[in-house]
Amino acid sequence: MKMSVGRMPHGFRNLITDVPGIQVGHCTVDEGNCHTGVTVIMPPVKNPFTQKLTAASHVINGFGKTLGLVQVDELGTLETPIAITNTLNVGKVHDAMVSYMANICERDGVKLTSVNPVVCECNDSRLSDIKRRPIGEKEVLAAISAAAETFEQGAVGAGRGTTCYGMKGGIGSSSRLMEIDGKVYTMGVLVQSNYGASDDFRDACLPEGLAECDQGSIILIVATDLPLSHRQLKRVLKRTSVGMARLGSYIGHGSGEIAVGFTTAPAQPIGGSFQARMMLNEDLMNIPFRAVGECAEEAILQSMWHAPADTALDGSPIPCLKDYIKEIKP
Amino acid sequence: MKMSVGRMPHGFRNLITDVPGIQVGHCTVDEGNCHTGVTVIMPPVKNPFTQKLTAASHVINGFGKTLGLVQVDELGTLETPIAITNTLNVGKVHDAMVSYMANICERDGVKLTSVNPVVCECNDSRLSDIKRRPIGEKEVLAAISAAAETFEQGAVGAGRGTTCYGMKGGIGSSSRLMEIDGKVYTMGVLVQSNYGASDDFRDACLPEGLAECDQGSIILIVATDLPLSHRQLKRVLKRTSVGMARLGSYIGHGSGEIAVGFTTAPAQPIGGSFQARMMLNEDLMNIPFRAVGECAEEAILQSMWHAPADTALDGSPIPCLKDYIKEIKP
Amino acid sequence: MKMSVGRMPHGFRNLITDVPGIQVGHCTVDEGNCHTGVTVIMPPVKNPFTQKLTAASHVINGFGKTLGLVQVDELGTLETPIAITNTLNVGKVHDAMVSYMANICERDGVKLTSVNPVVCECNDSRLSDIKRRPIGEKEVLAAISAAAETFEQGAVGAGRGTTCYGMKGGIGSSSRLMEIDGKVYTMGVLVQSNYGASDDFRDACLPEGLAECDQGSIILIVATDLPLSHRQLKRVLKRTSVGMARLGSYIGHGSGEIAVGFTTAPAQPIGGSFQARMMLNEDLMNIPFRAVGECAEEAILQSMWHAPADTALDGSPIPCLKDYIKEIKP
Amino acid sequence: MKMSVGRMPHGFRNLITDVPGIQVGHCTVDEGNCHTGVTVIMPPVKNPFTQKLTAASHVINGFGKTLGLVQVDELGTLETPIAITNTLNVGKVHDAMVSYMANICERDGVKLTSVNPVVCECNDSRLSDIKRRPIGEKEVLAAISAAAETFEQGAVGAGRGTTCYGMKGGIGSSSRLMEIDGKVYTMGVLVQSNYGASDDFRDACLPEGLAECDQGSIILIVATDLPLSHRQLKRVLKRTSVGMARLGSYIGHGSGEIAVGFTTAPAQPIGGSFQARMMLNEDLMNIPFRAVGECAEEAILQSMWHAPADTALDGSPIPCLKDYIKEIKP
Repeated sequence: MKMSVGRMPHGFRNLITDVPGIQVGHCTVDEGNCHTGVTVIMPPVKNPFTQKLTAASHVINGFGKTLGLVQVDELGTLETPIAITNTLNVGKVHDAMVSYMANICERDGVKLTSVNPVVCECNDSRLSDIKRRPIGEKEVLAAISAAAETFEQGAVGAGRGTTCYGMKGGIGSSSRLMEIDGKVYTMGVLVQSNYGASDDFRDACLPEGLAECDQGSIILIVATDLPLSHRQLKRVLKRTSVGMARLGSYIGHGSGEIAVGFTTAPAQPIGGSFQARMMLNEDLMNIPFRAVGECAEEAILQSMWHAPADTALDGSPIPCLKDYIKEIKP
Repeated sequence: MKMSVGRMPHGFRNLITDVPGIQVGHCTVDEGNCHTGVTVIMPPVKNPFTQKLTAASHVINGFGKTLGLVQVDELGTLETPIAITNTLNVGKVHDAMVSYMANICERDGVKLTSVNPVVCECNDSRLSDIKRRPIGEKEVLAAISAAAETFEQGAVGAGRGTTCYGMKGGIGSSSRLMEIDGKVYTMGVLVQSNYGASDDFRDACLPEGLAECDQGSIILIVATDLPLSHRQLKRVLKRTSVGMARLGSYIGHGSGEIAVGFTTAPAQPIGGSFQARMMLNEDLMNIPFRAVGECAEEAILQSMWHAPADTALDGSPIPCLKDYIKEIKP
Repeated sequence: MKMSVGRMPHGFRNLITDVPGIQVGHCTVDEGNCHTGVTVIMPPVKNPFTQKLTAASHVINGFGKTLGLVQVDELGTLETPIAITNTLNVGKVHDAMVSYMANICERDGVKLTSVNPVVCECNDSRLSDIKRRPIGEKEVLAAISAAAETFEQGAVGAGRGTTCYGMKGGIGSSSRLMEIDGKVYTMGVLVQSNYGASDDFRDACLPEGLAECDQGSIILIVATDLPLSHRQLKRVLKRTSVGMARLGSYIGHGSGEIAVGFTTAPAQPIGGSFQARMMLNEDLMNIPFRAVGECAEEAILQSMWHAPADTALDGSPIPCLKDYIKEIKP
Repeated sequence: MKMSVGRMPHGFRNLITDVPGIQVGHCTVDEGNCHTGVTVIMPPVKNPFTQKLTAASHVINGFGKTLGLVQVDELGTLETPIAITNTLNVGKVHDAMVSYMANICERDGVKLTSVNPVVCECNDSRLSDIKRRPIGEKEVLAAISAAAETFEQGAVGAGRGTTCYGMKGGIGSSSRLMEIDGKVYTMGVLVQSNYGASDDFRDACLPEGLAECDQGSIILIVATDLPLSHRQLKRVLKRTSVGMARLGSYIGHGSGEIAVGFTTAPAQPIGGSFQARMMLNEDLMNIPFRAVGECAEEAILQSMWHAPADTALDGSPIPCLKDYIKEIKP
């Protein structure tokens, strides 16, 4: 069986890093019963605290512990890399991100007394001893150091221990190209997939009963170089749920489903107390809306496609999508 | 081609009126270039102002003119029937609903100085001269008088002039049964469908290019007898978008997509200054979540299934779903 | 007793019309037991539908029936004048505004099939037979025709029948000047005041027991020529409640307290599919925050200051603020 | 000068712990340049994860880093004690709270794989070297162990290093009694105060120029034994800003102003898949609204009243309210 997603062309790598300048890094931990990790999405600036990007968040379903959304939506800006890890490890990753930001601000001669790390999570306790919280400053810095334009998908980093529709899930990504006024812009999505009941999966192509309950969460990171205002970006983020629903989700109760996004389009410096911001004419918003829905759907599929079969802590087998699907056609 | 929707059993009529006591009525207007109407959903109480039901709303996409949502979400109650009409006629229908409520309150000896009609709308200007606003007090009262447990679907009432995925759309409805603790509860949805690009329709079974743009709006009225709090009901309403996405929508920019819902489960009178409200244990919320997604998806299909082909004001033909689909299996 | 408000300088008229180009008009109706009216705030453009201004709304307390907020917050724009009237008359005023907009669009050769009137309200049933709804197209057009840079405050237009802290309330307005980079910008607020318990009024300078309950609503219209994004404008609107609290309100349950605002700063045309928007640097937001709080507080005081004593429908006297306060010092 | 607040009677201690069963504990750290701490509010249950209380949050101004609000508002429940600390230390306190909850769940034989700590913060960098983050598991457990019905106010725990209106601020608390149907209920507020410009302070009784800018944040924890639904509790929380505005705040840009609240009124067990929840009749909501406004205003005053003068890290003196005010009359 082949699965195809959408109608828009994808970027060169079909990854979120097709958005110019964005880098992604993982650190994966396999120690004893811990099979977990951290993934970082690096915005294309030297210091995200001093070069804040327009950002927004959208809570699809709030049974989750993502940190940092209050300020993102008040001020409309992102001031750190985005980190993703497991549910109980978010505090330690937050603390590590404070250290990292303090260091680069010190490097740049900026006094840092306040910073708002965005740390997202899914619950990987089916495959990993989640109470141990092995992700600390060392692991976060390793992920940051590893950040590059090419990166692995599947059971790596924050996706090491997650499951999706009863299959092995993980980190997945996809991109779409949007041509406007003769210029090509890119929409990219990266997901940590960990939700879904197997019987609900699109086209009913999975064996029944693998995962009976839609729970576990999904994180959807959205990046684009298209100039959008905070309000427009928030509208775009709301369409990530379209990709989930098309794959069979009904947005389950037990799932923390959070979208966080940013645009890399910079403010135009105009001097003095004002800035100029470009934004897309509102009646063209269907272009990024379609793009983000396709990216989200395919990123979830890619997260499963790249993840090999595994075994849960309780010994139950966790199959992989490649056993059931022959090809994904973006 | 057959289309099937979901896995849960539907109610006796497969209509929103399977929720005990709910009635629906239409008044359709065909005069000159006006092909429009009004549809009312009557809650199962003699006077909704004195017997307020727990209610909520959710804005999927806010490019719409639905009236009354501010108070519904502040107080968590519905105090009138819900009326649906076309975009420019909402003011007149609001005024008619004030008259209606004033009359039944006078009948009941209640002094009415404030009331919050909920009036929803889609834009039917492709088939109807929308600037004329022919729906007034007479038409609203006719719809209320006609309200019954059985009602027509398709190109009637507020659905007279709407289109959906390039086909003729209209009013559609569906229900699902939920067994909890040995008792059967019902979820019902009624839609006024008026959105969607034909190329995006599920399974790509429609001819290309009929409707190129996802615009026009959809109203989704949700009713249930399941005891839910305002917060829980709002969570349920958010899942109506799942039905839309499964049919191919990416939640277009130009579409006002609004869900309004209520539960008929009454407060328990306990005397004095307090009331007792039953609510479902939160970890069972997947039951109504799945039900409302299935209802929304099928209600949209039924709205198209029951509508005959028509002709737009500009003379262009508007085909009907029955030309392309053989059967809908709920 | 003198009352002073704030520290910032006010504009030439100390009215919302100090914001360049804004005009305000009233139509007051005194017929039998009806003592009500309509007030319109005209944005400084020839056709607000084709020259949409950046706008936002904020619901302080949602026990109210204001129409049009869903779209204002989705699209971030205002596309009609703002009308204010009484609670039960909003539907008819909505319909009148549709007629008005259809006419000016026809004048400008624009086909209008959808428009989002913003219609706000307070409940004036203490002084007026609210069920009669005497405000129709004629009255709305009269208010629009009367719109000018100078306008009456107190018991006129939509403020004809309202009460505030047990005193006669009505329409009030105030402005503040903000100097930024050597240029002077103006913040203006217009209120329809109809809330507050007399015992709570600032400095306890009113006789006790006049109005025991904080109910009835307040509408706060905010205008500025300061370039602000939708998100920034929404932040500004949230500060209108500061003015209310300083006068003694605790944001009562029975009061619909709604702020709607817009900036007259235009988008910069840059050709093609994008627009450039100026916005204030975020760390200067305290300037408009302080200004709007002062304006709101003073506008409420002015609404009471300009209103003469009156008599309720039940014969009870409604005193005026001038009986208790000697001077308001802005 | 005497300051009085409100008209309602306060509880026995005039503290949040007047709400039966609630306990508050501090751990204060004074090491080198660190003058900071942590304060915990303990709900009156043995295990808040298994005995979840109805809870809500409200963001007055979101320039803050409080953790845990997404889930509180989705599910309407609190499942941990609430901790308050400084801005950069929230990650470590989150991690400590995970450990604490894991331990008490293990004690109770409950497998914990997910938990949502609520951790609030203000920025105390004027008095404390905020980058050092000295609050870890030991300090959090010390605060929990110290929790009692009586507790210190002022410059202790999370209030050790904060300032308010240019004075020394800190932890403050207040309560109000509400008699309904012959039974007395209690509203309690605890604040960590760290905001406000001195020139804006109520009655202009402070020397000018001490704090020029309204920045720094305030946390307002609300507790009550009044039975309220999640929606009602959220309405109550919105009124905390009234207390701030009455003291002179205009809700400054640079201030993270967050209210989190819960009711200790338990669900009624009714067996099976449903629960019964008591809630106050909506038309009596003015009672808790007035109470919470008075509590918030007085709690802020008490936080300053109990804090002695101090010296900032840069050597500048930070005076105390007692130098300017003779008495606070609740």
